[in-house]
Amino acid sequence: MRIDKVNLDEMLSRFDDHWSPKTVGRLNDYELKVVKVQGEFVWHQHDETDEVFLVLDGELTIDTPDGPIVLGPRETVTIPRGVPHRPRAKTEASILLIEPAGVVNTGEAGGALTASAESLI
Amino acid sequence: MRIDKVNLDEMLSRFDDHWSPKTVGRLNDYELKVVKVQGEFVWHQHDETDEVFLVLDGELTIDTPDGPIVLGPRETVTIPRGVPHRPRAKTEASILLIEPAGVVNTGEAGGALTASAESLI
Repeated sequence: MRIDKVNLDEMLSRFDDHWSPKTVGRLNDYELKVVKVQGEFVWHQHDETDEVFLVLDGELTIDTPDGPIVLGPRETVTIPRGVPHRPRAKTEASILLIEPAGVVNTGEAGGALTASAESLI
Repeated sequence: MRIDKVNLDEMLSRFDDHWSPKTVGRLNDYELKVVKVQGEFVWHQHDETDEVFLVLDGELTIDTPDGPIVLGPRETVTIPRGVPHRPRAKTEASILLIEPAGVVNTGEAGGALTASAESLI
């Protein structure tokens, strides 16, 4: 069995689009995804799963019903299942997401920003 | 519901011991752990689960039956379930681990380095 390492910066260099997660790792039935974000995403929630955000570069704000959570590099938060949230970033930020395979970025909200994760591995 | 962010550097500043993972995040029935490593760990395997290593600082080598995998900062690898591996680091490295809650660091091998993850959150 061949086991390949993944360099997150090399993965980030392969794309420029925003709000479109790319799969860069797998762990049982979970996936690691990288995503570049800028501007405001939609309010949404994931009823079936928690979601981990880990900021790699830049600053990410996640609005929640209890107020905004502001994350810089090497900061992480778990948004529990069922909690509405809206990610946003004034300038481009790069994020690592960890969640079960098949989770859609807009959760229960749908809309124009809905994207299935493309795999880079 | 209060949702707290976690700063990985703040978590790393709270301990100095090696090979003893600390829980810093949760995701459904999975955990994110940080661990400082230096020297050689034991060969071991996890028969029930894959394991993700993401290097935060320093350099980590993971020996596998097919040879060593050398990881620097912002590099990640998934060791598939059942694959023997031995982490090692010449100088201190800091690692983020992602795996199901309850996984023991020495897997099926046991021994003096066995440690249950202490929670920092």
